[in-house]
Amino acid sequence: MKNPFPILTPDEAASRICHDEVIGFSGFTPAGAAKVIPTAIAVRARGEHDAGRPFKVGVITGASTGPSLDGELAKADCIKFRTPYQSDKDLRASINAGKTHFFDMHLSLLPQYIRYGFLGPLDWAIVEAADVSAEGKILLTTSVGAAPTFLKQAKKILIEVNRRHPRELLGFHDIYEPKSPPHRSPIPICAADDRIGTQRVWVDPEKIVGVVESNRPDEVPGFMPVTDVTTRIGCHVAEFLAAELGNGHLPKEFLPIQSGVGNVANAVLGAMGEHPEIPRFQMYTEVIQDSVIDLIQQDRCSFASGVSLTVTDPVLQGIYDDLESYRGRLLLRPQEIANNPEVVRRLGIISINTALEADIFGNINSTHVLGQKMMNGIGGSGDFTRNAYISIFTCPSTAKDGNISAIVPMCSHMDHSEHSVQVLVTEHGVADLRGKDPRERAAAIIQNCVDPSYQNLLQEYFKLTENGHTPQSFRSAFAFHETFLKSGDMRNTTFQH
Amino acid sequence: MKNPFPILTPDEAASRICHDEVIGFSGFTPAGAAKVIPTAIAVRARGEHDAGRPFKVGVITGASTGPSLDGELAKADCIKFRTPYQSDKDLRASINAGKTHFFDMHLSLLPQYIRYGFLGPLDWAIVEAADVSAEGKILLTTSVGAAPTFLKQAKKILIEVNRRHPRELLGFHDIYEPKSPPHRSPIPICAADDRIGTQRVWVDPEKIVGVVESNRPDEVPGFMPVTDVTTRIGCHVAEFLAAELGNGHLPKEFLPIQSGVGNVANAVLGAMGEHPEIPRFQMYTEVIQDSVIDLIQQDRCSFASGVSLTVTDPVLQGIYDDLESYRGRLLLRPQEIANNPEVVRRLGIISINTALEADIFGNINSTHVLGQKMMNGIGGSGDFTRNAYISIFTCPSTAKDGNISAIVPMCSHMDHSEHSVQVLVTEHGVADLRGKDPRERAAAIIQNCVDPSYQNLLQEYFKLTENGHTPQSFRSAFAFHETFLKSGDMRNTTFQH
Repeated sequence: MKNPFPILTPDEAASRICHDEVIGFSGFTPAGAAKVIPTAIAVRARGEHDAGRPFKVGVITGASTGPSLDGELAKADCIKFRTPYQSDKDLRASINAGKTHFFDMHLSLLPQYIRYGFLGPLDWAIVEAADVSAEGKILLTTSVGAAPTFLKQAKKILIEVNRRHPRELLGFHDIYEPKSPPHRSPIPICAADDRIGTQRVWVDPEKIVGVVESNRPDEVPGFMPVTDVTTRIGCHVAEFLAAELGNGHLPKEFLPIQSGVGNVANAVLGAMGEHPEIPRFQMYTEVIQDSVIDLIQQDRCSFASGVSLTVTDPVLQGIYDDLESYRGRLLLRPQEIANNPEVVRRLGIISINTALEADIFGNINSTHVLGQKMMNGIGGSGDFTRNAYISIFTCPSTAKDGNISAIVPMCSHMDHSEHSVQVLVTEHGVADLRGKDPRERAAAIIQNCVDPSYQNLLQEYFKLTENGHTPQSFRSAFAFHETFLKSGDMRNTTFQH
Repeated sequence: MKNPFPILTPDEAASRICHDEVIGFSGFTPAGAAKVIPTAIAVRARGEHDAGRPFKVGVITGASTGPSLDGELAKADCIKFRTPYQSDKDLRASINAGKTHFFDMHLSLLPQYIRYGFLGPLDWAIVEAADVSAEGKILLTTSVGAAPTFLKQAKKILIEVNRRHPRELLGFHDIYEPKSPPHRSPIPICAADDRIGTQRVWVDPEKIVGVVESNRPDEVPGFMPVTDVTTRIGCHVAEFLAAELGNGHLPKEFLPIQSGVGNVANAVLGAMGEHPEIPRFQMYTEVIQDSVIDLIQQDRCSFASGVSLTVTDPVLQGIYDDLESYRGRLLLRPQEIANNPEVVRRLGIISINTALEADIFGNINSTHVLGQKMMNGIGGSGDFTRNAYISIFTCPSTAKDGNISAIVPMCSHMDHSEHSVQVLVTEHGVADLRGKDPRERAAAIIQNCVDPSYQNLLQEYFKLTENGHTPQSFRSAFAFHETFLKSGDMRNTTFQH
């Protein structure tokens, strides 16, 4: 590689970072995340701690990252604060122990929070790149995330140049950053495949402190196989959307799909791909998973716009081996654009996200296990859900062999209010909540979505509380959760009358 | 008046309405609401009921209306369902008794819900107008609300021509309706005073069944005088915004203000008007109240865009007596545009809304008294808050002579999650929640916003529950509410350890 920037080892790069500094790392999911420098920072932190010196840094990313970033830094106990999202088991433990300050944010908001100065000055941007030119033009790898904003706002830049990613990726990114109010103009995206920006991020080369060579693959885990439950959820979603097309609620052209991450999402996309009445469609989403690549190969998905290409290594190699056939069918955008309320509402996205817990009135908990423990974060679910043409939440009706009902009298934490939730789907069926008042919503959810082993209990709760616009009992609202904590099985719940 | 449409009496107009039909009425607050026809429909309903025949209609409006619409129809027990917002005492009682199906909606979403067919076909639009031409060009009065969508989508139209409103109102409305996806383009508003549409609503004159003459004033209630508490809230908000300007978090041009409705909002606007460091500003809001007119007269507000001109009758007469001096300084838009996430985020609105209840983690209840009883509805607070440059919620720290703390361990109903709430203000001070994790938010809110008579109790709850990312106790989360229901005073709360 020829470049005018100092080539550093990971340790040399890490040595430039000082205690108390704030770093914006590339990465949106493990895709495109910085890897070797954060791991070296963790080593440096341990050394400093061993020497009796304080060493903690503020860690900002696009979303979650991989174990060599969040995992290593958490295990080294050197994260001063963390935002906007994470999914690492060690970091999660530290957050839930109250040791790491974590603030959960709508992902579309993070970049403007940085620009507006709400999180203070950004000392460093540490970004994985496929290439960097002497003029400071940076070709990103498998995600865009918030990297363009970090690169623009940071005082200093370190780059991990990762040669696993070919320079022919040029053209797979669309870099656009809105101006700050009062100078912002419309984001000119009117279709999922509209391009509005540059192919690379342009930075002042003077800010680039050094370059570290890397060859580490993205740490994308494999997915669990499709199960009977997730297949049934997928089929219900596909049937529902086909019916909405049939009754004219959806335009005949269909609309772009946003789909959350994970096994249920994979099953839903699979079912949509197989449904004969659902036309070939576009994705306007956050995370492009293996299942989207399958749909592109089958020509069921004509175009996928996302923030990250979060695919397993064999799938990524397959794409790189045949890159030209994906050109014009895959595009990576900043999270501020992919998740932007303006664009989501204009395009009329059909949003499909997974709930951790729902209540009988259609409120959703996306983040907190038993109300207290942070799982991952709200991610982009709020950005898409609130502004969707139709917003769908999915979840298996039970967890832990039926000992937990995913549908409860009252969510133990609330991330999406009834106003944002139009359709709830479990393996048992679909509750269409549009135009229904709270009592009607409860009836539809209990009848269509709740597991049979919990229907009588939830019916009993609902009858017990029948008062006011939204019936509820302060004493019994969390009876399911309290029973689970005591006995390990929500089915043992008894309500106090 | 010369017009080609049949002139009907209110009773004749009401006689055209059939049981089970769905009506979209003009009105956003009492401003511009249909009045004489809905009152006549209520009379007709009573007659039908007395004759043993069923008579109920679906009632859709822009937001709340006045007593001659929601009040009369509720008292006549003829509302089959109601959306998206209300504030009438009789209707509220019927909703909370479970007699009227009410579904609460983000106000920006209502028009597209109608267009997409999610609420079924619309039989009637019944709209107050200042004038209607033979070609079907309708000049609205003191609100736009969702009237353009109702007029376009309804099969048949009845118009209340109200001559209290001068034809010279032409030019005070900006009528624009987005296309449905996938054909929607950017809403081209880049400043609060941008005009993008027509001055009148154009309809097919064939759909106009008749015109009813009216001379009824808008039923806008007077406001309570400013109190010591609301004055202090107002001063805290003004001081906070001045400090944000000073530290560079807000641009030197300042940004447009959205302000909720009511006495706290009036006090906040008053305080902003008086603050020497806050520049002359624009409003991009929903409801233009008396206090905005004061600010325009003082030249502290240079322009106000809203959905309704909800001013008391003497203030409205003052505007009409001097209409030309307000031309170019007041503009009324459809709620779909005024509240649109796209425009709110682009302009960088500073949103200021009132909370009914907040919890120590910064979640907000805007709608339900003690979790069960619907007060009014979420209105536009979600549209603005989620997309604001800075979102502020205000409330007096206590209610009912201190027997209720507005800040509780857990909201009894949740409308705005922590993710949408950046700043909380009571008469005691300001909690800036940006970049804080839940424990830090709780500390800031308890210290700065909670009434001293509740600080120890909330501190005790917080210590009791210190576990997980968001500490909480299923047993004690609603102890404040349960204590109030039992003893009438939340200060009597004791927590079970």
